[in-house]
Amino acid sequence: MKYNVAILGATGTVGQRFIEILKDHPWFKIEVLAASPRSAGKKYKEACKWLLKSEMPEEIGEMTVVNTDVQEVSKAGNVDLVFSALPGDIAGPVEEEFAKQYPLVSKAKAHRYDEDVPLLIAEVNPDHLGLIPVQKERRGYDGFITTDPNCSTIQLVLSLKPLEKFGIKKVLVSTMQALSGAGYPGVPSMDIIDNVVPFISGEEEKLERETLKIMGRFDGDKITYADFKVSASCNRVNVSDGHLECVFVELEQEPSIEEVKEAFRNFRGEPQRLNLPSAPKNPIIVREERDRPQPRYDRDAEGGMSVVVGRVRKDPIMTVKYLCLGHNTIRGAAGAGVLSAELLAAKKYI
Amino acid sequence: MKYNVAILGATGTVGQRFIEILKDHPWFKIEVLAASPRSAGKKYKEACKWLLKSEMPEEIGEMTVVNTDVQEVSKAGNVDLVFSALPGDIAGPVEEEFAKQYPLVSKAKAHRYDEDVPLLIAEVNPDHLGLIPVQKERRGYDGFITTDPNCSTIQLVLSLKPLEKFGIKKVLVSTMQALSGAGYPGVPSMDIIDNVVPFISGEEEKLERETLKIMGRFDGDKITYADFKVSASCNRVNVSDGHLECVFVELEQEPSIEEVKEAFRNFRGEPQRLNLPSAPKNPIIVREERDRPQPRYDRDAEGGMSVVVGRVRKDPIMTVKYLCLGHNTIRGAAGAGVLSAELLAAKKYI
Amino acid sequence: MKYNVAILGATGTVGQRFIEILKDHPWFKIEVLAASPRSAGKKYKEACKWLLKSEMPEEIGEMTVVNTDVQEVSKAGNVDLVFSALPGDIAGPVEEEFAKQYPLVSKAKAHRYDEDVPLLIAEVNPDHLGLIPVQKERRGYDGFITTDPNCSTIQLVLSLKPLEKFGIKKVLVSTMQALSGAGYPGVPSMDIIDNVVPFISGEEEKLERETLKIMGRFDGDKITYADFKVSASCNRVNVSDGHLECVFVELEQEPSIEEVKEAFRNFRGEPQRLNLPSAPKNPIIVREERDRPQPRYDRDAEGGMSVVVGRVRKDPIMTVKYLCLGHNTIRGAAGAGVLSAELLAAKKYI
Amino acid sequence: MKYNVAILGATGTVGQRFIEILKDHPWFKIEVLAASPRSAGKKYKEACKWLLKSEMPEEIGEMTVVNTDVQEVSKAGNVDLVFSALPGDIAGPVEEEFAKQYPLVSKAKAHRYDEDVPLLIAEVNPDHLGLIPVQKERRGYDGFITTDPNCSTIQLVLSLKPLEKFGIKKVLVSTMQALSGAGYPGVPSMDIIDNVVPFISGEEEKLERETLKIMGRFDGDKITYADFKVSASCNRVNVSDGHLECVFVELEQEPSIEEVKEAFRNFRGEPQRLNLPSAPKNPIIVREERDRPQPRYDRDAEGGMSVVVGRVRKDPIMTVKYLCLGHNTIRGAAGAGVLSAELLAAKKYI
Repeated sequence: MKYNVAILGATGTVGQRFIEILKDHPWFKIEVLAASPRSAGKKYKEACKWLLKSEMPEEIGEMTVVNTDVQEVSKAGNVDLVFSALPGDIAGPVEEEFAKQYPLVSKAKAHRYDEDVPLLIAEVNPDHLGLIPVQKERRGYDGFITTDPNCSTIQLVLSLKPLEKFGIKKVLVSTMQALSGAGYPGVPSMDIIDNVVPFISGEEEKLERETLKIMGRFDGDKITYADFKVSASCNRVNVSDGHLECVFVELEQEPSIEEVKEAFRNFRGEPQRLNLPSAPKNPIIVREERDRPQPRYDRDAEGGMSVVVGRVRKDPIMTVKYLCLGHNTIRGAAGAGVLSAELLAAKKYI
Repeated sequence: MKYNVAILGATGTVGQRFIEILKDHPWFKIEVLAASPRSAGKKYKEACKWLLKSEMPEEIGEMTVVNTDVQEVSKAGNVDLVFSALPGDIAGPVEEEFAKQYPLVSKAKAHRYDEDVPLLIAEVNPDHLGLIPVQKERRGYDGFITTDPNCSTIQLVLSLKPLEKFGIKKVLVSTMQALSGAGYPGVPSMDIIDNVVPFISGEEEKLERETLKIMGRFDGDKITYADFKVSASCNRVNVSDGHLECVFVELEQEPSIEEVKEAFRNFRGEPQRLNLPSAPKNPIIVREERDRPQPRYDRDAEGGMSVVVGRVRKDPIMTVKYLCLGHNTIRGAAGAGVLSAELLAAKKYI
Repeated sequence: MKYNVAILGATGTVGQRFIEILKDHPWFKIEVLAASPRSAGKKYKEACKWLLKSEMPEEIGEMTVVNTDVQEVSKAGNVDLVFSALPGDIAGPVEEEFAKQYPLVSKAKAHRYDEDVPLLIAEVNPDHLGLIPVQKERRGYDGFITTDPNCSTIQLVLSLKPLEKFGIKKVLVSTMQALSGAGYPGVPSMDIIDNVVPFISGEEEKLERETLKIMGRFDGDKITYADFKVSASCNRVNVSDGHLECVFVELEQEPSIEEVKEAFRNFRGEPQRLNLPSAPKNPIIVREERDRPQPRYDRDAEGGMSVVVGRVRKDPIMTVKYLCLGHNTIRGAAGAGVLSAELLAAKKYI
Repeated sequence: MKYNVAILGATGTVGQRFIEILKDHPWFKIEVLAASPRSAGKKYKEACKWLLKSEMPEEIGEMTVVNTDVQEVSKAGNVDLVFSALPGDIAGPVEEEFAKQYPLVSKAKAHRYDEDVPLLIAEVNPDHLGLIPVQKERRGYDGFITTDPNCSTIQLVLSLKPLEKFGIKKVLVSTMQALSGAGYPGVPSMDIIDNVVPFISGEEEKLERETLKIMGRFDGDKITYADFKVSASCNRVNVSDGHLECVFVELEQEPSIEEVKEAFRNFRGEPQRLNLPSAPKNPIIVREERDRPQPRYDRDAEGGMSVVVGRVRKDPIMTVKYLCLGHNTIRGAAGAGVLSAELLAAKKYI
């Protein structure tokens, strides 16, 4: 018996990744595909310009897309769980409507900072799911909303979590982010050929704020944000998939480089302990080559679910510096959402 | 009456830029082109794969290349000044031989850290030329060696100089560097398509060390290195020309963003005061758009001799953060060398 | 005394090129900038995302954009000539309205096949301007419409014209076209990174049909299309500017390769004879290197107005094969339009 | 019981693909890795810069590379079959030495035109293997040489074979070839960024000549070359893997487009009939979208062993035109070699 899921924003780039990941999932079955009125009523294969290298699954292509509306979704199938890959600017009220009725795992930014909504990385802060009963009670929802962080945040925070025990004081990060992070059509080719664009709208703010909520402490009722400092500078580079981040961390302790690497390598979270279907065996892989990680070679590590860390070295200003790389539409988006849902299922929230 | 110049390493990418910049120079005339034995004896146009978008100057193409040897260069022409664009690994002893006889402006790394050799950015530390008499005396040279910094250092330090008055405590920089910085054939296309390479051999060390020498104090006899801290993380991106750097600076004072921008905009150095032929009117240009500077659009500012700064903003950890961009083979190499030579001429060192 | 010109579609990529070329033009003065209602009423610098490497001219940035409407344009200035860079799908009726009153040089496809409208390449078929009085008479216009061909056609036909004397029987062409040909935002970066798209909507039809009209014979009243055959296969490649075309031509005669090159090199047209301001000295440049022309190195030949031909060689099937390259937004668009207008002025059509 | 194989040129790009394909092969076992003296004696992982996205197989990395010498290879293992991925300029005599003793499948160009050496595409001309006994007899070899065609030829000829029944008269092809075709380091990034290089040394000659040998008739003793004509124009584009070719074919008959597509779709060869391990189920896949095949999306069809054809349409000059795409280092190189070897095994030549 599988859980039936609906995907909101099913025709977009993240929606497509959800489909790719869920099409043979052992626990979830794609029951409803929802998108904008422009797509509603069409077969998925007619509504969607498929952008992944894998072929669109044939049976998915034949499904009829419904409008992103709670009634229409309800009518279209018997849904246990909703994934939202809606655009950030319209997600807010729509997700609330769905959450009145359904458990909803959102990739959108709309509710990330809501006090009673978890901002979840399954390996990092599973205890924040404790907010769900608080939220249901406070809002009178039958369902609930849980959110996944921004793509560039997820991989950064995964790499920070193992360093927590050394006492994190400051985190400075400079990113080189992939084109697929901007969706489709996204970045015009004329803007990025032979170029770098040193600006991504809202991205630095997300990194600087989300990190502190995720790393914050849950006291049974609310999250107290972590009190270290984060600074980000974000750039778009001419790479299809895979965000690469230069990370500089100041720690309270002075661990050796080998101790830092050990902390990365040995890091395991709830998904690994629970052996969730999408959990990478190694949430963090440490490369020892002098020129890795690289997007082209490392983004697909463990199906794109591992974060790859490299060039871990002493920093003259902070304590340690390193590179971290993650697949932005898998670990940073759809894969993260599915892993969150698996955790919800394993923990009996759905 | 012009100064006759020889170019060592004339067939390489930096050598080509020297030719492009010097071909109609008001003060300098290209008298001798020197390169490796493989090229010696050939016409320049047969010895050189020209990589610039401008056409190779016809009369230069007809010149016969001589071997990089002080006797052969002397025989080939009456030389007043030597530019060295030699590869770092062979430059050391060769440049010393030339300096016994000629003033030599070097782009190579070999002598950058020599105690009695200036590491010059014409706008930043012209007083370091005071090392030249020290060097001549100590080494018994008739000529001398002066060096230009690494490309990524030059643009960084140009942007730091105006901040000196606020008291620099820490400088953290993450770079996205152009392909031409690796020379030719340089980076294989298979390594960089749809990719970023987060490593450039020796680059971080150069940024971290050269900066402190250039910003150091000359007391009439030697340089005392600046005592702030620098940390760098260097990356190669798929861009032809123009290094882009994310810079984070901690200052002793707390200037407003507008004061920082004013400092950038108003910065002028000796080259501007002396109105040297290659001096950009504005050594630093401040862009106000939210997504500039970009390599494709800003690298050619003032003929590639200006550094373009943008996104100047408060930093949550350090004091200020900004982007800086420079043309790595012009401002960062051949153009810097010519400007150094112009300063030497104006100051009567040649 | 200069002619005052209006530019329709002034904010688009071709409109921007018109501005760049016309800003210091000896015969033409930019009097009115027109664009869609979305832009109308705004300063040009606020209405336009400038995409050229040159800076937007300051005084142009301060001009107020008007709506693309003949009354509004008339009110905005005393216009002698109109350049249309309108999108193909809306150009048709709008251009007709303007032509009732003004001479109009159009880059749009709408009227290219109209029987009484010249499809002009200034060097190739200046006699087709004889259609203008026919058109004015037939349509009762005070002004008139003349059109420029599609970018990929212009460079092909320029290279074919000198071969006409050998008797053209068949022309087969396979193109590799630049991103800027698709306008802005145009091709999404995700579609073209590490890729080629072997399809450009309508492009093959344009090449196959326009070529025959341009090369057709004007008998004082109408054009009889040339009767050779053209076949095209069009591809989009990851290049910013400059279309590259592999051309295979079957001729009636069997000229030697040297004779073909001579024909290319010696080709001159009316613009050269009249010494028009935008006329390249050499409409066709022949490169002798084994690997040229290349977009990156040859697109800017003579300010982007020359077509660069290379690798001229015997063909085992047809008679001769060669490569031809042109700057698609200069020679293939705005530059061609300005050259057409110069010819019109020199021939007293305006 | 598997055949033990040696790979000559094991550290190069094609050698790496051989390893990737052979590492879990049901019939072949990698017994010896041979390369130049520079690599000999080292562990493979130390001798080789691995360029594939898959990780280097661990046990392969531990193997010691031997010198490309028949004695050393013999000493290193009990070899049944040799794959040669040697550079074309040194392959000739070396391969002859090996063939005296071993069956050798060569990817190098050295012996492709030898009268008694098959130039094999397993689906196209398996009967040419009849040359092997002729060769052994004539040369007195215990082993033999068979060669695989050039990458761009293989995919072209695979697409031509099904058209043979309509009578091929002329084949004109214009290619857009991937970077990996040039080996490693291969094309410098500075040569190809924002560029196309319209020349690949020797490539057009190979396409024009090899095609006729492969499609030639074997009469029990020698090959009579096919007598149609081929013309090629070859270009290097900024794509990692996957050659794309615009093909124009003149046929004696006038099949409908649907008949041509049917011929492509229904094409099967010996590898399919024999169900060889590396044989793609569909040697040719026909896409119906208006903008396919594309390298990024189609190069990995059936593990990179299928040729993908699209945009099949009437041609105004020839009879039919279409696009064809193949993975140049799989179907065009190592995959082709392995398939050839499988055919040799199935036919009892080894």
